[in-house]
Amino acid sequence: MPNYRFVIQYDGARYSGWQKQGNTEKTVQEKLETLLTRMDGGHRVIVDGSGRTDAGVHALGQVANAHLLTDFDCAELVRDMNRYLPEDIKIVSAEIVDPRFHSRLNAKRKTYRYRLWPDDEKPDVFIRRYVAEVPADLDTDAMERALKLLEGRHDFFAFCANRRYKKSTERTLYSCTLHRNGHEIDIDITGSGFLYGMVRILAGTIVEVGRGLRKPEDIPAILDSRDREQAGVMMPAEGLVLLRVEYPEE
Amino acid sequence: MPNYRFVIQYDGARYSGWQKQGNTEKTVQEKLETLLTRMDGGHRVIVDGSGRTDAGVHALGQVANAHLLTDFDCAELVRDMNRYLPEDIKIVSAEIVDPRFHSRLNAKRKTYRYRLWPDDEKPDVFIRRYVAEVPADLDTDAMERALKLLEGRHDFFAFCANRRYKKSTERTLYSCTLHRNGHEIDIDITGSGFLYGMVRILAGTIVEVGRGLRKPEDIPAILDSRDREQAGVMMPAEGLVLLRVEYPEE
Repeated sequence: MPNYRFVIQYDGARYSGWQKQGNTEKTVQEKLETLLTRMDGGHRVIVDGSGRTDAGVHALGQVANAHLLTDFDCAELVRDMNRYLPEDIKIVSAEIVDPRFHSRLNAKRKTYRYRLWPDDEKPDVFIRRYVAEVPADLDTDAMERALKLLEGRHDFFAFCANRRYKKSTERTLYSCTLHRNGHEIDIDITGSGFLYGMVRILAGTIVEVGRGLRKPEDIPAILDSRDREQAGVMMPAEGLVLLRVEYPEE
Repeated sequence: MPNYRFVIQYDGARYSGWQKQGNTEKTVQEKLETLLTRMDGGHRVIVDGSGRTDAGVHALGQVANAHLLTDFDCAELVRDMNRYLPEDIKIVSAEIVDPRFHSRLNAKRKTYRYRLWPDDEKPDVFIRRYVAEVPADLDTDAMERALKLLEGRHDFFAFCANRRYKKSTERTLYSCTLHRNGHEIDIDITGSGFLYGMVRILAGTIVEVGRGLRKPEDIPAILDSRDREQAGVMMPAEGLVLLRVEYPEE
């Protein structure tokens, strides 16, 4: 039963996120499982993703794996899956990996990008679905200082949208950076893992720093508070994209 | 009556092109004229574009001008127009220009890009609406040789979709180039002006060269034939974007 590892791109706008939730919602995982179950002769296929992405969140490099009965040629599998999947989901690659490989349990680092568009200009029409508008006149130096203070191992409970989360909320952020791309401002965050809503709440907090509503130096106190009320707003899903997932062997 | 010159971006998918056609069709020109008529106190405003773009064709740098009764502050005019226009039309800039400036009559060069996506890979989900799929295994060297042979002053009647066009079909192409951008292949054509359907028929002919169905050396004979049947197919609108329009003073 070969274990296939997929890299997947999707435009999240039409989906209730990556993960199956019930029977009524449309998710990327469900689309893939339904297709692979059909392609694998009716064997009930489970597709494990590296992690959930919320409703409306996009992905350039989501990773998932599935154990299939059939020995597929990987190039053909990619081509056939892409033919049957809708145009807003694309299989970038497939490969056969170690049977013990698990896209979620083995993931070492993930990188998310939050795409901000300062609202003194209308969003470019070709990227309007993939950016979030924010007030202009952002102090990007202050934002960068705040991002630096997020790097390292911290308890991110204050940045978790699920206030009843009982497991460890400690995570390591390896790199938190800001880049200007024309009028767009991108926040890139690479971490060991992310809590529910964490990147969008981090982005919201950083934007509040950029607007002068908070100081970069407030970040350590927000972390220490373990109080969701102390952190910023959760930014909208459409500005968030999962760029890549990295594994130890890479 | 100040003469305002606008640079305009649009996603052409929802429009029957730039130019007003009747009362039933939705065009970019109509959207702008309706808005500016309202903003200019009901004075019936005419917005002249540098040229038509066909239904479904996009623009990054369309240029248009309009004589308005009101003395608007240009930055405010841009902001207010963008607020009322739908999200798939963006005013990039506005400036007051010489009263004699006419966006179509004064245009010196226009540059169009045709975006090809070789179909051995599914289009990236984020640009899927802006590229046209073509058979893979294109001989891009042959395509570049054919593009070179299109440069210069020629009679492009064979590349005109309107077979009853009576005016001069001579145009000058200043530059016809091909660029790889990842998996995408872009054809950029800068010319003195373009006939109806011309860029899309040029792109179709170049793709046929890339597929080995024609030779680059066939180009001069196609031009000489003045026969639409000799040229290639007209490629779909969604792959075409008007990049910029240049004027003498620039």
